Amino acid sequence: MDYNWWEALINRWYPLDGIERKSDMNVYVDNAATTKMSRTAIDAMLPYMESEYGNPSSLHSVGQRAAEALLKARQSVAKNLGCEASEIIFTSGGSEADNQAILTAAILGARKGKKRIISTAFEHHAVLHTLEKLKKQGHEIELLDVHENGMVSAEQVKDAIRDDTALVTIMYANNEIGSILPIAEIGAVCREKGVYFHTDAVQAAGHIKIDVKEQNIDMLSISGHKFHGPKGVGALYVRRGIAVQNLIEGGAQERGKRAGTENIPAIVGMAAALDEACAHMDENAAKMTKIRDRLIEGLLEIPHSILNGDRERRLPGHVNICFEGIEGESLLLYLDDLGICASSGSACTSGSLDPSHVLLAIGRPHEIAHGSLRLSLCEENTEEEAEYIISSVKSVVERIRSMSPVWRDLQEGRKQYVIQ
Amino acid sequence: MDYNWWEALINRWYPLDGIERKSDMNVYVDNAATTKMSRTAIDAMLPYMESEYGNPSSLHSVGQRAAEALLKARQSVAKNLGCEASEIIFTSGGSEADNQAILTAAILGARKGKKRIISTAFEHHAVLHTLEKLKKQGHEIELLDVHENGMVSAEQVKDAIRDDTALVTIMYANNEIGSILPIAEIGAVCREKGVYFHTDAVQAAGHIKIDVKEQNIDMLSISGHKFHGPKGVGALYVRRGIAVQNLIEGGAQERGKRAGTENIPAIVGMAAALDEACAHMDENAAKMTKIRDRLIEGLLEIPHSILNGDRERRLPGHVNICFEGIEGESLLLYLDDLGICASSGSACTSGSLDPSHVLLAIGRPHEIAHGSLRLSLCEENTEEEAEYIISSVKSVVERIRSMSPVWRDLQEGRKQYVIQ
Repeated sequence: MDYNWWEALINRWYPLDGIERKSDMNVYVDNAATTKMSRTAIDAMLPYMESEYGNPSSLHSVGQRAAEALLKARQSVAKNLGCEASEIIFTSGGSEADNQAILTAAILGARKGKKRIISTAFEHHAVLHTLEKLKKQGHEIELLDVHENGMVSAEQVKDAIRDDTALVTIMYANNEIGSILPIAEIGAVCREKGVYFHTDAVQAAGHIKIDVKEQNIDMLSISGHKFHGPKGVGALYVRRGIAVQNLIEGGAQERGKRAGTENIPAIVGMAAALDEACAHMDENAAKMTKIRDRLIEGLLEIPHSILNGDRERRLPGHVNICFEGIEGESLLLYLDDLGICASSGSACTSGSLDPSHVLLAIGRPHEIAHGSLRLSLCEENTEEEAEYIISSVKSVVERIRSMSPVWRDLQEGRKQYVIQ
Repeated sequence: MDYNWWEALINRWYPLDGIERKSDMNVYVDNAATTKMSRTAIDAMLPYMESEYGNPSSLHSVGQRAAEALLKARQSVAKNLGCEASEIIFTSGGSEADNQAILTAAILGARKGKKRIISTAFEHHAVLHTLEKLKKQGHEIELLDVHENGMVSAEQVKDAIRDDTALVTIMYANNEIGSILPIAEIGAVCREKGVYFHTDAVQAAGHIKIDVKEQNIDMLSISGHKFHGPKGVGALYVRRGIAVQNLIEGGAQERGKRAGTENIPAIVGMAAALDEACAHMDENAAKMTKIRDRLIEGLLEIPHSILNGDRERRLPGHVNICFEGIEGESLLLYLDDLGICASSGSACTSGSLDPSHVLLAIGRPHEIAHGSLRLSLCEENTEEEAEYIISSVKSVVERIRSMSPVWRDLQEGRKQYVIQ
């Protein structure tokens, strides 16, 4: 089915006969796109917005108090990632961290004649587009195939590494389908082969356990707003001994590796949010897993639907399902009318007409990839919300299918179902 | 006089005999380093931290409300700079904006075989260090001399432009000495010659009038925290028709020109702060100018002191004075003990042992450049504070000189005064 804005709009204008909105239900299940800030994070930030506004580079006491807050935040983030404070560089977010990590390895590798970078076909665009830029500059990029279950194995990485490989960059967990990659195994392979290993842990940090030393990770990116921290801030862990290359040149902040006055309120807020998320990780995961599993169970009752990503090795709050004969954007708009905020995949590309590169990478055909629904939970979502989502999605899918010529063709045998 | 940490420390330990701290005085005069956020800016941000936390790329209503806030902020910033909303790219700050502007011109210029960039010797390091990087990549950099009064003329720029010049990047106002450059004249020259013109307006925005169209500016950088807005956010104006090059690759945010989830709270806060600053620009400037002039008058009563930067064409809140026989860091630490937060120059390099490159550029010798004091006001500073600063600086300078062997040499004729 081709993407059709008009169809989406017409569907939206058409009244939702027989589907009733529970007036008290406002369900936000798009936490992979961004999260609501926790009270802890906001409260940590406020003093640095209201009164402790110093520039940590200033010698006077107002500046030095800011410098102290910066150091404490750095120590806290480091503790929760299993590294030293001196190995943390604060950035403006996950994308910047990804860019800087890959640039670093590309430059250091090129100095030794190593111009090959290994990644996967379903990375975030902050990685893929950086790799495309490097390709234009003469680097060789190899994107590993992703298994239908959303996995890339350490074996694949091992087989792909050659003498001229500078870097392996593979995400910790996928932002669209939630699958958790075997990072420790890949890290071990890279360390053994003497190849830099970077992982985009934007979806993982604060949600599942990370230990960069144990897992042999050389560089790792995180983003504050994915775990109830502020937007506009992230961190890059770089193992001691790796000569980080600057993306943003200027002042001597962040050991001269990232210029620009440090965003103290956001850095402090991110550190507080990460600390809170890590402290409650197990209980949050248990709560979300239960709701996630109920959602998967309930939604797969819809005929001709399929789960994307591995059933078990997935983030505790992550559901992604394709419905045949459905245009995902219509589904989202209907759900929005019912008070449910969900996504079809990555928010970063939601304006695009192309189907998700992640779903294509795991082998979904175009027409199926267009019919995806991503539900990403946080620990505040409830079982009641899950039931409301299930009944709403069931009604809306039925409704969209009832108006879809493609669905009629499928039903009347003029086309074959892709999802049985 | 060589820089001497020990001397600074010993001075600090030494009691401030006869210099009394007014207990109620906490004077922050380091607004060029960073400012206290205005209540307006904080109040504008809070809803986007607490409840309106959506990702503007999301299709659902929570996301779309964030997208609306983003658009309004963009329109507001554009209005205050004299451009279209579509010409504004939000960044993580002034340094990032400077980097992206210069990179853009360097890439676009190189495509036409133009690899020469003209700048000045007293730019911010976000400009100078980016130019150094480009130099290593084969670009030719010409740094114009700065007149002793802190000025660079349009005539100098005109004479320097050649057929292979891609870019002129000259700051709007200097961050250390506060001199305001003849931007409109330089803009006219560049436009006439068909050369891109970028200006780092980080110190100017919100303080003096900017109109990018009238002034023939092609690219301009601003930073939120220099006008009572939040840290970690800035903007780059790029004239329509110039193909902006990405510094951070990834998602399609900012028309695909700057990846990363938009920092909505900070963007909204910056827009509110800029709007407030521009609305009260004249009255604020008048108030600050009066205090500034009193500070200059009072501090120049100290023997062997000299004002840095032009007496008239300077930012309304900006004072920078060198005192002979003084080590600037000692002065700062003493003033801090007296409740006065000031600076010796740029906060971004305050940890450095080198004298200010700005003061060297205007011809101050090393030993004089080390003895600088920068006072940068905001509209909340008072005349009472100015009198307290004047009496405090007088006492502290006298005290430091009384302990300084260099000063003794000068007094006893074994050395010649540089400042008469």
